[in-house]
Amino acid sequence: MDERISEHAEVLVEWSARIESGDDVVVSVGEGAHDLAVAVADALGERGANVVTTYASEEVQRAYLLAHDGDFELPEHELALYEAADSVLFLGAPRNTTATADIPSETKQAYGRAMVELREARMETDWVSTVHPTRALAQQAGMSYEEYTDFVYDAILRDWEELADEMAKMKEALDAGSEVRIVKEHTDLTMSIEGRTAVNSAASVAYDSHNLPSGEVFTAPVETSVEGEVFFDVPMTLEGARVENVHLTFEDGEVVDFSADAGEDELASILETDEGARYLGELGIGMNRGIDRFTNSILFDEKMGDTIHLAVGRAYDACLPEGEEGNQSAVHKDMITDMSEDSRIEIDGEVIQRNGTFRWEDGF
Amino acid sequence: MDERISEHAEVLVEWSARIESGDDVVVSVGEGAHDLAVAVADALGERGANVVTTYASEEVQRAYLLAHDGDFELPEHELALYEAADSVLFLGAPRNTTATADIPSETKQAYGRAMVELREARMETDWVSTVHPTRALAQQAGMSYEEYTDFVYDAILRDWEELADEMAKMKEALDAGSEVRIVKEHTDLTMSIEGRTAVNSAASVAYDSHNLPSGEVFTAPVETSVEGEVFFDVPMTLEGARVENVHLTFEDGEVVDFSADAGEDELASILETDEGARYLGELGIGMNRGIDRFTNSILFDEKMGDTIHLAVGRAYDACLPEGEEGNQSAVHKDMITDMSEDSRIEIDGEVIQRNGTFRWEDGF
Repeated sequence: MDERISEHAEVLVEWSARIESGDDVVVSVGEGAHDLAVAVADALGERGANVVTTYASEEVQRAYLLAHDGDFELPEHELALYEAADSVLFLGAPRNTTATADIPSETKQAYGRAMVELREARMETDWVSTVHPTRALAQQAGMSYEEYTDFVYDAILRDWEELADEMAKMKEALDAGSEVRIVKEHTDLTMSIEGRTAVNSAASVAYDSHNLPSGEVFTAPVETSVEGEVFFDVPMTLEGARVENVHLTFEDGEVVDFSADAGEDELASILETDEGARYLGELGIGMNRGIDRFTNSILFDEKMGDTIHLAVGRAYDACLPEGEEGNQSAVHKDMITDMSEDSRIEIDGEVIQRNGTFRWEDGF
Repeated sequence: MDERISEHAEVLVEWSARIESGDDVVVSVGEGAHDLAVAVADALGERGANVVTTYASEEVQRAYLLAHDGDFELPEHELALYEAADSVLFLGAPRNTTATADIPSETKQAYGRAMVELREARMETDWVSTVHPTRALAQQAGMSYEEYTDFVYDAILRDWEELADEMAKMKEALDAGSEVRIVKEHTDLTMSIEGRTAVNSAASVAYDSHNLPSGEVFTAPVETSVEGEVFFDVPMTLEGARVENVHLTFEDGEVVDFSADAGEDELASILETDEGARYLGELGIGMNRGIDRFTNSILFDEKMGDTIHLAVGRAYDACLPEGEEGNQSAVHKDMITDMSEDSRIEIDGEVIQRNGTFRWEDGF
């Protein structure tokens, strides 16, 4: 077995999920995640954790949803499992990233509504979501399987302690600052972050960070404060559609004008979801330099070093002052822009990153 | 997909497990059982059952057990899952039937002891155990994959209603009878079944039968009543060892002499487990004529038409009068003998099967 699989399992169990002896752990095993599941079982056994492995198959799910009459009910036995669990480790590994493409969206939505309590129970555990490389993910990224596998482990097998320390500098600057300005081609955007708290997303539940890989610092802009224009030059998939070169114009926080070279209809449909969908919910700064290219997967793309992403829609509670709701919406859609050249991020007028180099780095 | 997979799923869900709308079902998916899991999900969705799929991987289990220090504790979250479940469907499908061969037996035993409550919770549900054909099972049977697949579906896709009716005749004869005599080469064995109840094992929870395929009628002989000798000419695997041509001699129910052409040491070790291991716990009569050969798998072998099997060790509660304990032992080991030629089964002196033909069949 590729020894990086064991290293991945160690990072997941030790750094990310902080598993201890006696923890009741659910391991959700994707269709192609067998080898990682074996390595994770080894790491969990070594720590004396108690393990249930579930089978998270898109094809099984599809068959179930298509056969069902749509009147779903909450599975009490599944709820009991997650309510009693300390941690859930999601080992994503699709063998076909479009395996559920022919499930009617009403069916997915009806199922999603019936499972709210289940999702909440899972989110109350120390959960971590990660990915085991599969040929389907390689294909989605436009890469060979070998190349993609290297890419995944470069992103995951970081010195997370060191990266967490570096990201702490960014969090400190954001927490101390009042206004962020982002400048690059077709982009000059300002927003207030007054009173908001940045999250050091260091791929560990100890940092309120639930993705492996992670490697971003994010906060929630004050909804009505966003002014100016922004251009997202990283292609992405939104609602199943390819969306390219999105340009947004904000006034008093609201998107008042938008365009895209591809997927403009999908973009329009997202912005029309509800009022909050036209306001920003997140500013994220990608700091994982192990991720060196875009692979059409938000889990990786938004963490890439020298990028920032903005999400229209819902803000994360962790960024908001106690008792404040922040931007509310049914959606949260991230869009990414490359900051590696001819660009800068300013906090209260001071440049914190220029052309992809942070203030604390050599060559700034 | 082979349409027999869907038929198998239908038999499992409809005939065997009797799943109804709203039932909370756990589907335990073996490593090679993906296709059957998809078909079962379809059948469960159609009935409006609620489903959790678990991943039953021998390799994951092995990694966990080998890494653990051996001080196992009951997983509370897993217990909560099974306590809240109505049914558990085990889809066995090993990719290597010896995948756990290098786990020390003390480790397996320690794990088994810690999981008693979990096993009991599972056994209190309407559980059914079945098999999806894999290359590993074909290999264990000494067959090609195609041939083995045909074999499995011939055994499973029966007219179960019809077979249940036929088996009811055997149950009736056993329940009304007092003494059974089995006669063939090197075999003349008598035993009392007075007061014991036969189980019509028709592959359905409605018949207290939890295996698919099934197709046997079994009862528990009165422990101390067994007299004579019996020869088991069907090779089998006991405790991982090949055992051939076992010959047992009984006096007052106890095995007083034994021999085997192969595996005599393993046989001795089984008989020495405890006192009950030297007494019979089961007499079973195989009646599934869809099973036409031995495949080195007890799930199939003991159900084969025109065979009987006797188990040393523990008796099943279902065969015993209320309040009676029957034969007690830590083991229950089935051994099989072919009854297709030069043989007969008598109940109270009346022949019920001769040379593989039952009393109610043509040519008797």
